[in-house]
Amino acid sequence: MKRNIILDCDPGHDDAIAILLAGSNPNLNLLGISVVAGNQTIEKTARNALNVATYLGIDVPVAIGCEFPMVRERVICAAIHGESGLDGFDFPKYDKPFDKRHGVQLIIDSVLNNEDVTIVATGPLTNVAMAIKLEPKLLNKVKEIVLMGGSVDNGNTSPAAEFNIMCDPEAAHVVFSSGIPVKMIGLNVTRKVIVTDEVISRMEKINSKPSDMFAKLMKVFNANQRNTFGVKAGPLHDPATVACLIDESLIKFQKMNVVIDISHGPSYGRTNCDIFDYLHAPHNAYVAMDIDVEKYWNIVEKGIKAY
Amino acid sequence: MKRNIILDCDPGHDDAIAILLAGSNPNLNLLGISVVAGNQTIEKTARNALNVATYLGIDVPVAIGCEFPMVRERVICAAIHGESGLDGFDFPKYDKPFDKRHGVQLIIDSVLNNEDVTIVATGPLTNVAMAIKLEPKLLNKVKEIVLMGGSVDNGNTSPAAEFNIMCDPEAAHVVFSSGIPVKMIGLNVTRKVIVTDEVISRMEKINSKPSDMFAKLMKVFNANQRNTFGVKAGPLHDPATVACLIDESLIKFQKMNVVIDISHGPSYGRTNCDIFDYLHAPHNAYVAMDIDVEKYWNIVEKGIKAY
Amino acid sequence: MKRNIILDCDPGHDDAIAILLAGSNPNLNLLGISVVAGNQTIEKTARNALNVATYLGIDVPVAIGCEFPMVRERVICAAIHGESGLDGFDFPKYDKPFDKRHGVQLIIDSVLNNEDVTIVATGPLTNVAMAIKLEPKLLNKVKEIVLMGGSVDNGNTSPAAEFNIMCDPEAAHVVFSSGIPVKMIGLNVTRKVIVTDEVISRMEKINSKPSDMFAKLMKVFNANQRNTFGVKAGPLHDPATVACLIDESLIKFQKMNVVIDISHGPSYGRTNCDIFDYLHAPHNAYVAMDIDVEKYWNIVEKGIKAY
Amino acid sequence: MKRNIILDCDPGHDDAIAILLAGSNPNLNLLGISVVAGNQTIEKTARNALNVATYLGIDVPVAIGCEFPMVRERVICAAIHGESGLDGFDFPKYDKPFDKRHGVQLIIDSVLNNEDVTIVATGPLTNVAMAIKLEPKLLNKVKEIVLMGGSVDNGNTSPAAEFNIMCDPEAAHVVFSSGIPVKMIGLNVTRKVIVTDEVISRMEKINSKPSDMFAKLMKVFNANQRNTFGVKAGPLHDPATVACLIDESLIKFQKMNVVIDISHGPSYGRTNCDIFDYLHAPHNAYVAMDIDVEKYWNIVEKGIKAY
Repeated sequence: MKRNIILDCDPGHDDAIAILLAGSNPNLNLLGISVVAGNQTIEKTARNALNVATYLGIDVPVAIGCEFPMVRERVICAAIHGESGLDGFDFPKYDKPFDKRHGVQLIIDSVLNNEDVTIVATGPLTNVAMAIKLEPKLLNKVKEIVLMGGSVDNGNTSPAAEFNIMCDPEAAHVVFSSGIPVKMIGLNVTRKVIVTDEVISRMEKINSKPSDMFAKLMKVFNANQRNTFGVKAGPLHDPATVACLIDESLIKFQKMNVVIDISHGPSYGRTNCDIFDYLHAPHNAYVAMDIDVEKYWNIVEKGIKAY
Repeated sequence: MKRNIILDCDPGHDDAIAILLAGSNPNLNLLGISVVAGNQTIEKTARNALNVATYLGIDVPVAIGCEFPMVRERVICAAIHGESGLDGFDFPKYDKPFDKRHGVQLIIDSVLNNEDVTIVATGPLTNVAMAIKLEPKLLNKVKEIVLMGGSVDNGNTSPAAEFNIMCDPEAAHVVFSSGIPVKMIGLNVTRKVIVTDEVISRMEKINSKPSDMFAKLMKVFNANQRNTFGVKAGPLHDPATVACLIDESLIKFQKMNVVIDISHGPSYGRTNCDIFDYLHAPHNAYVAMDIDVEKYWNIVEKGIKAY
Repeated sequence: MKRNIILDCDPGHDDAIAILLAGSNPNLNLLGISVVAGNQTIEKTARNALNVATYLGIDVPVAIGCEFPMVRERVICAAIHGESGLDGFDFPKYDKPFDKRHGVQLIIDSVLNNEDVTIVATGPLTNVAMAIKLEPKLLNKVKEIVLMGGSVDNGNTSPAAEFNIMCDPEAAHVVFSSGIPVKMIGLNVTRKVIVTDEVISRMEKINSKPSDMFAKLMKVFNANQRNTFGVKAGPLHDPATVACLIDESLIKFQKMNVVIDISHGPSYGRTNCDIFDYLHAPHNAYVAMDIDVEKYWNIVEKGIKAY
Repeated sequence: MKRNIILDCDPGHDDAIAILLAGSNPNLNLLGISVVAGNQTIEKTARNALNVATYLGIDVPVAIGCEFPMVRERVICAAIHGESGLDGFDFPKYDKPFDKRHGVQLIIDSVLNNEDVTIVATGPLTNVAMAIKLEPKLLNKVKEIVLMGGSVDNGNTSPAAEFNIMCDPEAAHVVFSSGIPVKMIGLNVTRKVIVTDEVISRMEKINSKPSDMFAKLMKVFNANQRNTFGVKAGPLHDPATVACLIDESLIKFQKMNVVIDISHGPSYGRTNCDIFDYLHAPHNAYVAMDIDVEKYWNIVEKGIKAY
């Protein structure tokens, strides 16, 4: 049986590849795409999501979600994702419309009107948390939330915090304390899946529409990583969420207590993951501890080839 | 011209009287009532709001809003408002249905589909903040938010915090930092309008359906105040919001900087009102500094008689 | 029997009058004066303390204490107390030396080498807290700490915080959570004892060295209050501490729970006084709730005349 | 020329080995040992420090320091260090007295009366911070503070915090924000120097008084690590401080911004180390990034043999 998923994202280069994987796998039933602000403003991330889906022929509702975080002021990440939020690939001008519903409503409807829906979240958790707060029935109806965000050690936006969580720590707190099963895939794992030149070449050789998009986007992504962090190539964070649904053996998870720092102090946005169970507190999340890098790129390759 | 208002409330004894005032004044155009959890759980406050409106013949949409605060865990106040949230008066069993929309959606629709809508809020600010976050167009479309909450000095739930703000400090932060004109009517003013036995007798003499409801509710309200705080009679907080729209001379406001404490420390939920402008920070709210007590009871009396 | 006291202060205009009261009362045995930074830097407040004591012929050790708060960065208050910390009166150039000990050590020695010592604190609580931390024997040996600081309602430095506590909230936390009996005299009470022109004239008529100092200091103090806060005359905060030891009927205290806000948020430095026992937490301080204004000025007058 | 050092510690098994190294190296001039509460209460850690020094014939002042942290409540670590704080070795009953001065005063005197003193701190930073606050001249007089504490990634007491920092985060904040050059050696490095059975055997073979103490202490230390954390052997944290003074090539440091979390939230006590300079904030500490494990055990061995 296919697994029902809704993808909440903020494309974003790595989000684009998450969409690609979600849209082509025969075992996943993508119900819709809700978009959130994060890597860029909502106008841009929404446009990018619709462009990617249309380009790849993924025919699902794409709905515009929250423009601002729940509590804190807005943060974006133009340094990595560029002015458009998806610099590096020029999409044709499509006239496919957005879904009329709010992104938050799309999540709620998808969960309530289907069975066992998994929410895959690759951006700040604003839409997901707002959906939970607007419709508490989700608390008992969502199968699982699989998210890219946080870290068991240190961040990529501050010493304490990873970007997606940093953008909306209060939303992350809502998700992690909701009681819904949460799979957190953080930097400690995604930093292992670097889009090297070899990876790009390998995908480029597939020589198709999707591979062309992949290669062009990743080249600019890496150039921006280089300029910002001084690294040769960047980690392809977001698709790890979808990939671990495609192959459950891809990522090793450990159940533990995770508390989001919403203190507004220097550790604001940190995911405090109690790996060693120091606190003897309830285990509220499955945290990714390791990833099979080879399998990961095989999944990505297969995803590109599936179109 | 009539003033468009939407009333967001959590009845609650004093909320009930706010509904009464809002429903009968010829200068106010009540567009709808959205309900939030606070004085009691959402099932109870929603039922109470619909009962009061129906009992008084106020024919506007009543919509069920948020069950939980935005970020923190839920708080209720059974000590003052009783098991039902509105102990003291038995309403007939009505079959009027709730509006189908979510309370948050009712606020959004009412603001977007009408001109110059004032949001009157007499409960925790969850619904209002959620509406702002879900539909940022509200930022430039809401005429004003007039709310009962906070205090310039000390609280009634903790030494720092007043109940409505305490129930959802993050929502209050969203409202006060939104840029929408805010009128805050806090305990420093509402503590002056005590529903004494004299006040109750005076209203009881009107001898009508609404006066009967008023008197019965207030007697239980005062009994609960007595048992909880050891005072003879309690302050009739919430109707001050509607009353100041009915008579602009009722309350003296001062514009100042107000910052909500969302630190999760011992002052969590405090409205830090910079009366003396110590901080030279932007003036983001009009804070009630005094109230004309005689005028207040005249407005309440007139409101009861208007039915 | 005389009451042993040590006075910890940061003169400061009102501190100077506290020294005056402490130095002349037959029922008080002033063991020493420790000085702390606060109203001005430590060099200035220490010099001022020694000057005042010498001018008044008070022959006790005056020891220089802490230059910086325990944790936070330094704050001073030049707007009210001027460049010297005691603008308005020119003291002769004295050659009396400071006590060789650190102010913190003077406190420790005074408490350990005498019986039933009361610590009177009229500045930030740095020295007192440092003494407690350096010598935990003080926890069971100090009779009482009587301090000017905090407020049951709102502050004079931020909407939340009074100056003395604001200068070193962590020190205040140490004092209030120490288990030593604490009498807190805050703004809610000291704001009632305004040094009006009438008060100044009355003291001036005594026509003595001390009255001359009083009048000259108070005139500049009031001028600074006027320029800073726009009030005609300011509150004579600090002497209320000594005065309540001279006449126990002067101030009405209520025992309650007091928690210092050390959250570094907008309420940093607030004394959360649980007047109504909302929190049912341990009662760790006697908080001043009212003062007999007439008695207060009588005590001040008598103190001036006693020299 | 010998390097002047004062060792502030809370023995504690690994502190004992730090004393051993500090007491025998010809290039180090150990001026004294100040003791702080931490691994156990002050009575126990002080006794342990004096015992270790006496046993090894290290004839320097040993002074008892702070019993409690600066602001927070006391924390100890009996699980690892046992009831005595140094379980595993029975010292003879010595009658050598403690230095009469307070540990904080010993630090101050040692720094002011000598040139270029390095403070080596292997426990909570209470004594060091108290010394800085009591005598701000230290700010310009201390050569360097070399400390074991914190982590660039995650903690060993909570997911966020390492034990020494966790015990007194405010003291750590004082040290790291003091402007004094700070070398921080944290868990990310000390976790690499595990006292394996091989290490213990190697040292045991030296077959001397010091090697006997080393072996017996380490066996119990490892047993406790096993029972508490389920690991076969524990990291020998504290001697890394002294060792890096003995051989400057031992540890690779990187200068960066470090901010201590004093928010009292879930990350309280975390050392936020900005390795990648995300915040572009002042570089206030040299943080240990790597250690040469082989060299480390050679230094330890040489230290044991030096007696």
